[in-house]
Amino acid sequence: MLDRIRIVLIGTSHPGNIGAAARAMKTMGLADLALVAPRCEPASQEAIARASGADDILAAMQRFDALDAAVADCTWVVGCSARSRTLPWPLQSPRQFAAQLPGQLVHLDARVAIVFGREDSGLNNAELQRCNAHVHIPTNEAYSSLNLAAAVQVLAYECRQAWLDGEQRDARDSGAPFGVAWDNPLASHDDLERFFAHLERTLIAIGFHDPNNPRQLMARMRRLFLRAHVDSMEMNMLRGILSAVDKQVSAPSKNR
Amino acid sequence: MLDRIRIVLIGTSHPGNIGAAARAMKTMGLADLALVAPRCEPASQEAIARASGADDILAAMQRFDALDAAVADCTWVVGCSARSRTLPWPLQSPRQFAAQLPGQLVHLDARVAIVFGREDSGLNNAELQRCNAHVHIPTNEAYSSLNLAAAVQVLAYECRQAWLDGEQRDARDSGAPFGVAWDNPLASHDDLERFFAHLERTLIAIGFHDPNNPRQLMARMRRLFLRAHVDSMEMNMLRGILSAVDKQVSAPSKNR
Repeated sequence: MLDRIRIVLIGTSHPGNIGAAARAMKTMGLADLALVAPRCEPASQEAIARASGADDILAAMQRFDALDAAVADCTWVVGCSARSRTLPWPLQSPRQFAAQLPGQLVHLDARVAIVFGREDSGLNNAELQRCNAHVHIPTNEAYSSLNLAAAVQVLAYECRQAWLDGEQRDARDSGAPFGVAWDNPLASHDDLERFFAHLERTLIAIGFHDPNNPRQLMARMRRLFLRAHVDSMEMNMLRGILSAVDKQVSAPSKNR
Repeated sequence: MLDRIRIVLIGTSHPGNIGAAARAMKTMGLADLALVAPRCEPASQEAIARASGADDILAAMQRFDALDAAVADCTWVVGCSARSRTLPWPLQSPRQFAAQLPGQLVHLDARVAIVFGREDSGLNNAELQRCNAHVHIPTNEAYSSLNLAAAVQVLAYECRQAWLDGEQRDARDSGAPFGVAWDNPLASHDDLERFFAHLERTLIAIGFHDPNNPRQLMARMRRLFLRAHVDSMEMNMLRGILSAVDKQVSAPSKNR
Protein backbone atom coordinates (compact mmCIF):
# COMPACT_ATOMS: atom_id res chain seq x y z
CA MET A 1 0.00 0.00 0.00
CA LEU A 2 2.70 2.51 0.99
CA ASP A 3 4.45 2.07 -2.37
CA ARG A 4 1.45 3.60 -4.12
CA ILE A 5 1.50 6.85 -2.17
CA ARG A 6 3.31 9.72 -3.85
CA ILE A 7 4.53 12.82 -2.06
CA VAL A 8 4.42 15.86 -4.36
CA LEU A 9 6.26 19.04 -3.41
CA ILE A 10 5.42 22.16 -5.39
CA GLY A 11 7.80 25.08 -5.78
CA THR A 12 10.07 24.15 -2.91
CA SER A 13 12.70 26.82 -2.33
CA HIS A 14 15.02 25.20 0.25
CA PRO A 15 16.96 22.09 -0.77
CA GLY A 16 17.32 21.18 2.91
CA ASN A 17 13.56 20.76 3.10
CA ILE A 18 13.61 18.36 0.14
CA GLY A 19 16.27 16.25 1.85
CA ALA A 20 14.45 16.33 5.18
CA ALA A 21 11.18 15.40 3.44
CA ALA A 22 12.91 12.40 1.83
CA ARG A 23 14.19 11.34 5.25
CA ALA A 24 10.73 11.76 6.79
CA MET A 25 9.22 9.67 4.00
CA LYS A 26 11.74 6.87 4.29
CA THR A 27 11.34 6.52 8.06
CA MET A 28 7.68 5.81 7.38
CA GLY A 29 8.22 3.48 4.43
CA LEU A 30 7.26 5.88 1.62
CA ALA A 31 9.52 6.12 -1.42
CA ASP A 32 7.77 7.95 -4.27
CA LEU A 33 8.77 11.62 -4.31
CA ALA A 34 7.89 14.07 -7.07
CA LEU A 35 8.89 17.71 -7.39
CA VAL A 36 6.93 20.27 -9.34
CA ALA A 37 8.82 23.34 -10.52
CA PRO A 38 11.28 23.47 -7.60
CA ARG A 39 12.67 26.93 -6.89
CA CYS A 40 16.06 25.53 -5.89
CA GLU A 41 18.58 22.92 -6.98
CA PRO A 42 17.02 19.79 -5.46
CA ALA A 43 20.10 17.57 -5.77
CA SER A 44 22.37 19.93 -3.84
CA GLN A 45 24.75 18.95 -1.05
CA GLU A 46 22.39 20.42 1.52
CA ALA A 47 19.53 18.20 0.34
CA ILE A 48 21.73 15.12 0.47
CA ALA A 49 23.06 16.03 3.92
CA ARG A 50 19.57 16.53 5.35
CA ALA A 51 18.35 13.32 3.69
CA SER A 52 20.80 11.52 5.97
CA GLY A 53 20.78 8.14 4.27
CA ALA A 54 17.52 8.59 2.40
CA ASP A 55 19.40 9.72 -0.69
CA ASP A 56 18.01 6.77 -2.65
CA ILE A 57 14.70 8.63 -2.57
CA LEU A 58 16.37 11.77 -3.89
CA ALA A 59 18.07 9.75 -6.64
CA ALA A 60 14.75 8.25 -7.74
CA MET A 61 12.59 11.36 -7.43
CA GLN A 62 10.92 12.73 -10.52
CA ARG A 63 10.66 16.35 -11.63
CA PHE A 64 7.72 17.90 -13.42
CA ASP A 65 6.87 21.33 -14.71
CA ALA A 66 3.25 21.22 -13.61
CA LEU A 67 1.08 19.53 -11.01
CA ASP A 68 -1.13 17.85 -13.62
CA ALA A 69 1.79 15.86 -14.98
CA ALA A 70 2.98 14.86 -11.51
CA VAL A 71 -0.37 13.36 -10.55
CA ALA A 72 -1.69 12.28 -13.97
CA ASP A 73 -1.88 8.60 -12.99
CA CYS A 74 -3.27 9.20 -9.50
CA THR A 75 -6.82 8.24 -8.57
CA TRP A 76 -6.99 10.32 -5.38
CA VAL A 77 -5.21 13.63 -5.05
CA VAL A 78 -5.17 15.28 -1.66
CA GLY A 79 -3.81 18.78 -1.09
CA CYS A 80 -2.24 19.72 2.21
CA SER A 81 -3.72 23.10 2.97
CA ALA A 82 -3.02 25.46 5.82
CA ARG A 83 -5.53 28.11 4.86
CA SER A 84 -9.26 28.23 4.78
CA ARG A 85 -10.54 29.30 1.39
CA THR A 86 -13.32 31.49 0.14
CA LEU A 87 -14.76 28.42 -1.59
CA PRO A 88 -14.93 25.60 0.97
CA TRP A 89 -13.72 22.20 -0.24
CA PRO A 90 -14.15 18.83 1.49
CA LEU A 91 -11.68 19.08 4.36
CA GLN A 92 -10.21 16.26 6.39
CA SER A 93 -7.91 15.88 9.32
CA PRO A 94 -4.76 13.80 8.72
CA ARG A 95 -6.38 10.97 10.63
CA GLN A 96 -9.59 11.07 8.61
CA PHE A 97 -7.48 11.16 5.47
CA ALA A 98 -5.40 8.17 6.58
CA ALA A 99 -8.45 6.17 7.55
CA GLN A 100 -9.57 6.30 3.93
CA LEU A 101 -6.25 5.19 2.45
CA PRO A 102 -6.74 1.42 2.56
CA GLY A 103 -10.05 1.79 0.77
CA GLN A 104 -8.74 4.28 -1.78
CA LEU A 105 -5.88 1.91 -2.56
CA VAL A 106 -7.88 -1.32 -2.62
CA HIS A 107 -7.62 -1.52 -6.41
CA LEU A 108 -4.07 -2.44 -7.28
CA ASP A 109 -3.81 0.24 -9.94
CA ALA A 110 -5.05 2.95 -7.62
CA ARG A 111 -2.51 5.57 -6.64
CA VAL A 112 -2.68 8.41 -4.12
CA ALA A 113 -0.85 11.73 -4.21
CA ILE A 114 -0.38 14.03 -1.25
CA VAL A 115 0.48 17.50 -2.49
CA PHE A 116 2.42 20.07 -0.46
CA GLY A 117 2.81 23.71 -1.46
CA ARG A 118 5.50 26.33 -1.22
CA GLU A 119 7.21 27.13 2.08
CA ASP A 120 6.03 30.73 1.94
CA SER A 121 2.64 30.58 0.29
CA GLY A 122 1.37 26.98 0.22
CA LEU A 123 -0.81 25.82 -2.64
CA ASN A 124 -2.57 28.33 -4.85
CA ASN A 125 -6.25 28.14 -5.71
CA ALA A 126 -5.69 26.53 -9.12
CA GLU A 127 -3.69 23.77 -7.42
CA LEU A 128 -6.20 23.30 -4.62
CA GLN A 129 -8.95 23.00 -7.19
CA ARG A 130 -7.21 20.02 -8.76
CA CYS A 131 -7.52 18.01 -5.55
CA ASN A 132 -10.24 15.55 -4.60
CA ALA A 133 -9.97 16.64 -0.99
CA HIS A 134 -7.93 18.89 1.25
CA VAL A 135 -6.22 17.80 4.42
CA HIS A 136 -5.41 20.26 7.16
CA ILE A 137 -2.94 19.51 9.93
CA PRO A 138 -4.55 21.03 13.02
CA THR A 139 -1.94 23.52 14.19
CA ASN A 140 -1.84 26.07 16.93
CA GLU A 141 -3.97 28.98 15.72
CA ALA A 142 -1.50 31.43 17.17
CA TYR A 143 1.46 29.80 15.39
CA SER A 144 0.80 27.58 12.43
CA SER A 145 4.28 27.76 10.92
CA LEU A 146 4.76 24.07 10.29
CA ASN A 147 8.02 23.28 8.53
CA LEU A 148 7.51 21.59 5.14
CA ALA A 149 9.38 18.43 6.11
CA ALA A 150 7.55 18.34 9.45
CA ALA A 151 4.23 18.41 7.59
CA VAL A 152 5.45 15.58 5.36
CA GLN A 153 6.49 13.71 8.51
CA VAL A 154 3.04 14.01 10.06
CA LEU A 155 1.20 12.87 6.93
CA ALA A 156 3.70 10.07 6.25
CA TYR A 157 3.35 8.95 9.85
CA GLU A 158 -0.42 8.81 9.49
CA CYS A 159 -0.08 6.83 6.25
CA ARG A 160 2.17 4.29 7.95
CA GLN A 161 -0.11 4.11 10.96
CA ALA A 162 -3.09 3.42 8.69
CA TRP A 163 -1.12 0.72 6.93
CA LEU A 164 -0.10 -0.88 10.22
CA ASP A 165 -3.67 -0.67 11.48
CA GLY A 166 -4.82 -2.39 8.32
CA GLU A 167 -2.19 -5.11 8.55
CA GLN A 168 -3.21 -5.80 12.11
CA ARG A 169 -6.87 -5.65 11.33
CA ASP A 170 -6.38 -8.40 8.78
CA ALA A 171 -8.33 -6.62 6.04
CA ARG A 172 -11.53 -6.69 8.10
CA ASP A 173 -13.49 -5.26 5.29
CA SER A 174 -12.14 -3.87 2.08
CA GLY A 175 -13.31 -0.36 3.02
CA ALA A 176 -13.46 0.77 -0.57
CA PRO A 177 -13.92 4.51 -1.08
CA PHE A 178 -17.68 4.27 -0.96
CA GLY A 179 -17.82 1.61 1.73
CA VAL A 180 -18.63 -1.16 -0.72
CA ALA A 181 -16.91 -3.01 -3.55
CA TRP A 182 -17.26 -0.75 -6.59
CA ASP A 183 -18.12 -1.85 -10.11
CA ASN A 184 -15.66 0.35 -11.98
CA PRO A 185 -12.18 1.68 -11.35
CA LEU A 186 -12.02 5.35 -10.47
CA ALA A 187 -11.16 7.94 -13.08
CA SER A 188 -7.61 9.22 -12.99
CA HIS A 189 -6.58 12.82 -12.46
CA ASP A 190 -5.76 13.03 -16.15
CA ASP A 191 -9.25 11.85 -17.11
CA LEU A 192 -10.75 14.46 -14.79
CA GLU A 193 -8.68 17.29 -16.20
CA ARG A 194 -9.65 16.37 -19.76
CA PHE A 195 -13.27 16.31 -18.67
CA PHE A 196 -13.02 19.75 -17.06
CA ALA A 197 -11.42 21.17 -20.19
CA HIS A 198 -14.18 19.65 -22.32
CA LEU A 199 -16.87 20.86 -19.93
CA GLU A 200 -15.53 24.39 -20.06
CA ARG A 201 -15.43 24.41 -23.88
CA THR A 202 -18.98 23.14 -24.06
CA LEU A 203 -20.31 25.58 -21.48
CA ILE A 204 -18.77 28.43 -23.47
CA ALA A 205 -20.22 27.05 -26.71
CA ILE A 206 -23.75 26.95 -25.31
CA GLY A 207 -23.38 30.45 -23.94
CA PHE A 208 -23.59 29.48 -20.29
CA HIS A 209 -20.03 30.31 -19.33
CA ASP A 210 -18.20 33.56 -19.98
CA PRO A 211 -14.49 33.19 -19.21
CA ASN A 212 -14.32 36.96 -18.75
CA ASN A 213 -16.94 36.77 -16.04
CA PRO A 214 -16.40 33.30 -14.60
CA ARG A 215 -18.36 33.74 -11.34
CA GLN A 216 -16.50 30.72 -9.90
CA LEU A 217 -18.49 28.50 -12.24
CA MET A 218 -15.62 26.18 -13.14
CA ALA A 219 -14.32 26.20 -9.56
CA ARG A 220 -17.71 25.05 -8.35
CA MET A 221 -18.01 22.42 -11.08
CA ARG A 222 -14.55 21.15 -10.11
CA ARG A 223 -15.50 20.98 -6.47
CA LEU A 224 -18.68 19.08 -7.27
CA PHE A 225 -17.16 16.43 -9.53
CA LEU A 226 -13.92 16.06 -7.60
CA ARG A 227 -15.66 15.37 -4.34
CA ALA A 228 -17.98 12.89 -6.03
CA HIS A 229 -14.91 10.88 -7.02
CA VAL A 230 -16.11 9.96 -10.49
CA ASP A 231 -15.56 6.40 -11.71
CA SER A 232 -14.41 5.53 -15.21
CA MET A 233 -17.81 4.57 -16.60
CA GLU A 234 -19.44 7.71 -15.23
CA MET A 235 -16.60 9.63 -16.81
CA ASN A 236 -17.34 8.05 -20.19
CA MET A 237 -21.01 8.96 -19.82
CA LEU A 238 -20.24 12.57 -18.88
CA ARG A 239 -17.91 12.92 -21.85
CA GLY A 240 -20.56 11.34 -24.07
CA ILE A 241 -23.15 13.84 -22.87
CA LEU A 242 -20.80 16.73 -23.64
CA SER A 243 -20.12 15.36 -27.11
CA ALA A 244 -23.85 15.03 -27.73
CA VAL A 245 -24.31 18.67 -26.65
CA ASP A 246 -21.42 19.73 -28.89
CA LYS A 247 -23.15 18.09 -31.82
CA GLN A 248 -26.29 20.15 -31.15
CA VAL A 249 -24.26 23.33 -31.14
CA SER A 250 -22.43 22.62 -34.36
CA ALA A 251 -25.24 20.86 -36.20
CA PRO A 252 -24.81 21.89 -39.85
CA SER A 253 -28.54 22.22 -40.22
CA LYS A 254 -28.45 24.98 -37.70
CA ASN A 255 -27.42 27.79 -40.02
CA ARG A 256 -26.76 30.44 -37.46
CA MET B 1 -4.07 20.36 28.98
CA LEU B 2 -1.28 21.08 26.48
CA ASP B 3 0.35 23.57 28.86
CA ARG B 4 1.07 20.73 31.25
CA ILE B 5 3.07 18.65 28.79
CA ARG B 6 6.84 19.09 28.91
CA ILE B 7 9.25 18.08 26.18
CA VAL B 8 12.62 16.98 27.63
CA LEU B 9 15.65 16.67 25.36
CA ILE B 10 18.67 14.83 26.78
CA GLY B 11 22.24 15.36 25.56
CA THR B 12 21.27 17.06 22.31
CA SER B 13 24.33 17.77 20.17
CA HIS B 14 22.93 19.89 17.32
CA PRO B 15 21.50 23.31 18.18
CA GLY B 16 19.48 23.23 14.94
CA ASN B 17 17.55 20.28 16.34
CA ILE B 18 16.70 22.23 19.48
CA GLY B 19 15.37 25.12 17.40
CA ALA B 20 13.41 22.79 15.12
CA ALA B 21 11.99 20.97 18.14
CA ALA B 22 10.81 24.30 19.58
CA ARG B 23 9.12 25.10 16.29
CA ALA B 24 7.49 21.64 16.16
CA MET B 25 6.21 22.13 19.72
CA LYS B 26 4.78 25.55 19.09
CA THR B 27 2.88 24.52 15.96
CA MET B 28 1.07 22.01 18.15
CA GLY B 29 0.48 24.33 21.08
CA LEU B 30 3.18 23.00 23.43
CA ALA B 31 5.45 25.48 25.19
CA ASP B 32 7.37 23.77 28.00
CA LEU B 33 10.84 22.72 26.84
CA ALA B 34 13.58 21.40 29.11
CA LEU B 35 17.14 20.45 28.20
CA VAL B 36 19.21 17.96 30.15
CA ALA B 37 22.99 18.22 29.79
CA PRO B 38 23.01 19.50 26.20
CA ARG B 39 26.17 18.77 24.25
CA CYS B 40 25.99 22.04 22.34
CA GLU B 41 25.23 25.71 22.89
CA PRO B 42 21.43 25.66 22.84
CA ALA B 43 20.94 29.41 22.42
CA SER B 44 23.07 29.65 19.29
CA GLN B 45 22.13 31.46 16.09
CA GLU B 46 21.41 28.15 14.40
CA ALA B 47 18.89 27.19 17.05
CA ILE B 48 17.15 30.54 16.77
CA ALA B 49 17.11 30.36 12.96
CA ARG B 50 15.56 26.90 12.92
CA ALA B 51 13.05 27.90 15.61
CA SER B 52 11.64 30.30 13.01
CA GLY B 53 9.51 32.41 15.32
CA ALA B 54 9.28 29.91 18.16
CA ASP B 55 12.18 31.61 19.93
CA ASP B 56 9.91 32.46 22.86
CA ILE B 57 10.08 28.75 23.67
CA LEU B 58 13.88 28.84 23.51
CA ALA B 59 13.95 31.90 25.74
CA ALA B 60 11.79 30.21 28.36
CA MET B 61 13.37 26.75 28.25
CA GLN B 62 15.02 25.39 31.34
CA ARG B 63 18.34 23.59 31.63
CA PHE B 64 19.10 20.74 34.02
CA ASP B 65 22.10 18.58 34.71
CA ALA B 66 20.14 15.39 35.15
CA LEU B 67 16.86 13.88 34.05
CA ASP B 68 15.56 13.51 37.61
CA ALA B 69 15.61 17.26 38.14
CA ALA B 70 13.98 17.97 34.78
CA VAL B 71 10.97 15.78 35.53
CA ALA B 72 10.81 16.16 39.31
CA ASP B 73 7.31 17.67 39.29
CA CYS B 74 5.91 15.36 36.62
CA THR B 75 3.29 12.75 37.39
CA TRP B 76 3.80 10.71 34.21
CA VAL B 77 7.12 10.38 32.44
CA VAL B 78 7.26 8.73 29.06
CA GLY B 79 10.51 7.95 27.27
CA CYS B 80 10.66 8.00 23.49
CA SER B 81 12.59 4.89 22.55
CA ALA B 82 13.70 3.68 19.17
CA ARG B 83 15.23 0.45 20.33
CA SER B 84 13.81 -2.64 21.87
CA ARG B 85 15.45 -3.46 25.16
CA THR B 86 16.60 -6.60 26.86
CA LEU B 87 14.25 -5.79 29.72
CA PRO B 88 10.77 -5.27 28.30
CA TRP B 89 9.01 -2.17 29.56
CA PRO B 90 5.44 -1.09 28.98
CA LEU B 91 5.57 0.01 25.37
CA GLN B 92 3.01 2.15 23.61
CA SER B 93 2.44 3.54 20.19
CA PRO B 94 2.18 7.33 19.98
CA ARG B 95 -1.56 6.98 19.57
CA GLN B 96 -1.94 4.74 22.60
CA PHE B 97 0.16 7.20 24.56
CA ALA B 98 -1.94 10.15 23.44
CA ALA B 99 -5.19 8.37 24.24
CA GLN B 100 -4.10 8.24 27.88
CA LEU B 101 -3.17 11.91 28.11
CA PRO B 102 -6.56 13.35 29.06
CA GLY B 103 -6.83 10.83 31.86
CA GLN B 104 -3.28 11.39 33.03
CA LEU B 105 -3.86 15.13 33.10
CA VAL B 106 -7.32 15.16 34.61
CA HIS B 107 -5.98 16.45 37.92
CA LEU B 108 -4.99 20.05 37.51
CA ASP B 109 -1.64 19.59 39.18
CA ALA B 110 -0.74 16.60 37.05
CA ARG B 111 2.11 17.10 34.59
CA VAL B 112 3.44 14.87 31.82
CA ALA B 113 6.98 14.70 30.44
CA ILE B 114 7.98 13.21 27.11
CA VAL B 115 11.68 12.45 27.13
CA PHE B 116 13.84 12.27 23.99
CA GLY B 117 17.41 10.96 23.91
CA ARG B 118 20.60 11.79 22.06
CA GLU B 119 20.70 12.01 18.26
CA ASP B 120 23.27 9.20 18.07
CA SER B 121 22.40 6.86 20.93
CA GLY B 122 18.92 7.67 22.24
CA LEU B 123 18.14 7.14 25.91
CA ASN B 124 20.37 4.90 27.99
CA ASN B 125 19.04 2.16 30.23
CA ALA B 126 19.23 4.25 33.41
CA GLU B 127 17.12 6.93 31.75
CA LEU B 128 14.63 4.50 30.26
CA GLN B 129 14.20 2.97 33.69
CA ARG B 130 13.10 6.32 35.09
CA CYS B 131 10.09 6.38 32.79
CA ASN B 132 6.58 5.23 33.56
CA ALA B 133 6.23 3.96 30.04
CA HIS B 134 8.06 3.91 26.75
CA VAL B 135 6.62 5.13 23.51
CA HIS B 136 7.90 3.86 20.20
CA ILE B 137 7.19 5.62 16.90
CA PRO B 138 6.63 2.82 14.42
CA THR B 139 9.28 3.42 11.78
CA ASN B 140 10.36 1.55 8.68
CA GLU B 141 12.39 -1.39 9.95
CA ALA B 142 14.86 -0.94 7.13
CA TYR B 143 15.39 2.76 7.96
CA SER B 144 14.45 4.02 11.39
CA SER B 145 16.59 7.18 11.34
CA LEU B 146 13.96 9.60 12.57
CA ASN B 147 15.30 13.11 13.06
CA LEU B 148 15.00 14.35 16.66
CA ALA B 149 12.75 17.30 15.79
CA ALA B 150 10.66 15.03 13.53
CA ALA B 151 10.09 12.69 16.49
CA VAL B 152 9.09 15.67 18.63
CA GLN B 153 6.73 16.74 15.83
CA VAL B 154 5.00 13.36 15.74
CA LEU B 155 4.52 13.15 19.51
CA ALA B 156 3.45 16.80 19.78
CA TYR B 157 0.98 16.24 16.95
CA GLU B 158 -0.51 13.26 18.79
CA CYS B 159 -0.79 15.33 21.98
CA ARG B 160 -2.64 18.07 20.15
CA GLN B 161 -4.85 15.56 18.37
CA ALA B 162 -5.83 14.00 21.72
CA TRP B 163 -6.62 17.43 23.07
CA LEU B 164 -8.70 18.38 20.03
CA ASP B 165 -10.54 15.06 20.17
CA GLY B 166 -11.62 15.93 23.68
CA GLU B 167 -12.43 19.57 22.92
CA GLN B 168 -14.30 18.90 19.73
CA ARG B 169 -16.17 15.77 20.57
CA ASP B 170 -19.41 17.72 20.71
CA ALA B 171 -18.74 19.90 17.70
CA ARG B 172 -17.77 16.85 15.67
CA ASP B 173 -21.21 15.41 16.07
CA SER B 174 -22.75 18.49 14.52
CA GLY B 175 -22.48 16.56 11.27
CA ALA B 176 -20.98 19.01 8.80
CA PRO B 177 -21.13 16.78 5.71
CA PHE B 178 -17.78 17.82 4.25
CA GLY B 179 -15.93 18.39 7.51
CA VAL B 180 -15.95 22.14 7.08
CA ALA B 181 -18.46 24.99 7.20
CA TRP B 182 -20.06 25.05 3.77
CA ASP B 183 -21.01 28.15 1.83
CA ASN B 184 -24.44 27.03 0.66
CA PRO B 185 -27.22 24.89 2.06
CA LEU B 186 -27.55 21.46 0.53
CA ALA B 187 -30.11 20.83 -2.15
CA SER B 188 -33.30 19.17 -0.97
CA HIS B 189 -34.54 15.81 -2.10
CA ASP B 190 -37.19 17.62 -4.06
CA ASP B 191 -34.59 19.77 -5.83
CA LEU B 192 -32.67 16.63 -6.72
CA GLU B 193 -35.68 14.89 -8.15
CA ARG B 194 -36.61 17.88 -10.29
CA PHE B 195 -33.02 17.98 -11.52
CA PHE B 196 -33.04 14.29 -12.45
CA ALA B 197 -36.31 14.72 -14.33
CA HIS B 198 -34.90 17.72 -16.20
CA LEU B 199 -31.63 15.87 -16.89
CA GLU B 200 -33.50 12.93 -18.36
CA ARG B 201 -35.60 15.17 -20.64
CA THR B 202 -32.51 16.97 -21.88
CA LEU B 203 -30.54 13.77 -22.46
CA ILE B 204 -33.42 12.45 -24.54
CA ALA B 205 -33.64 15.71 -26.47
CA ILE B 206 -29.97 15.65 -27.42
CA GLY B 207 -30.22 12.02 -28.48
CA PHE B 208 -27.97 10.64 -25.80
CA HIS B 209 -30.57 8.75 -23.82
CA ASP B 210 -33.07 6.25 -25.17
CA PRO B 211 -35.68 5.37 -22.52
CA ASN B 212 -36.32 2.13 -24.39
CA ASN B 213 -32.67 1.17 -23.99
CA PRO B 214 -31.69 2.92 -20.80
CA ARG B 215 -28.39 1.05 -20.10
CA GLN B 216 -28.58 2.19 -16.47
CA LEU B 217 -27.72 5.70 -17.60
CA MET B 218 -30.09 7.49 -15.24
CA ALA B 219 -29.29 5.10 -12.42
CA ARG B 220 -25.61 5.94 -12.78
CA MET B 221 -26.28 9.67 -13.01
CA ARG B 222 -28.37 9.41 -9.85
CA ARG B 223 -25.64 7.56 -8.05
CA LEU B 224 -23.05 10.13 -9.11
CA PHE B 225 -24.99 13.26 -8.11
CA LEU B 226 -26.55 11.79 -5.00
CA ARG B 227 -23.24 10.74 -3.52
CA ALA B 228 -21.72 14.13 -4.31
CA HIS B 229 -24.35 15.69 -2.05
CA VAL B 230 -25.09 18.66 -4.29
CA ASP B 231 -25.53 22.07 -2.67
CA SER B 232 -28.17 24.59 -3.68
CA MET B 233 -25.91 26.83 -5.74
CA GLU B 234 -24.44 23.89 -7.61
CA MET B 235 -27.99 22.75 -8.21
CA ASN B 236 -28.88 26.12 -9.72
CA MET B 237 -25.84 25.93 -11.97
CA LEU B 238 -26.66 22.41 -13.15
CA ARG B 239 -30.24 23.41 -13.91
CA GLY B 240 -28.91 26.49 -15.72
CA ILE B 241 -26.64 24.32 -17.86
CA LEU B 242 -29.54 22.06 -18.77
CA SER B 243 -31.66 25.06 -19.74
CA ALA B 244 -28.85 26.42 -21.90
CA VAL B 245 -28.59 23.04 -23.64
CA ASP B 246 -32.36 22.98 -24.12
CA LYS B 247 -32.14 26.33 -25.83
CA GLN B 248 -29.59 24.95 -28.29
CA VAL B 249 -31.87 22.07 -29.12
CA SER B 250 -34.95 24.15 -29.68
CA ALA B 251 -33.26 27.14 -31.27
CA PRO B 252 -35.77 28.37 -33.85
CA SER B 253 -32.96 29.02 -36.31
CA LYS B 254 -32.27 25.33 -36.34
CA ASN B 255 -34.87 24.27 -38.87
CA ARG B 256 -34.80 20.56 -38.39
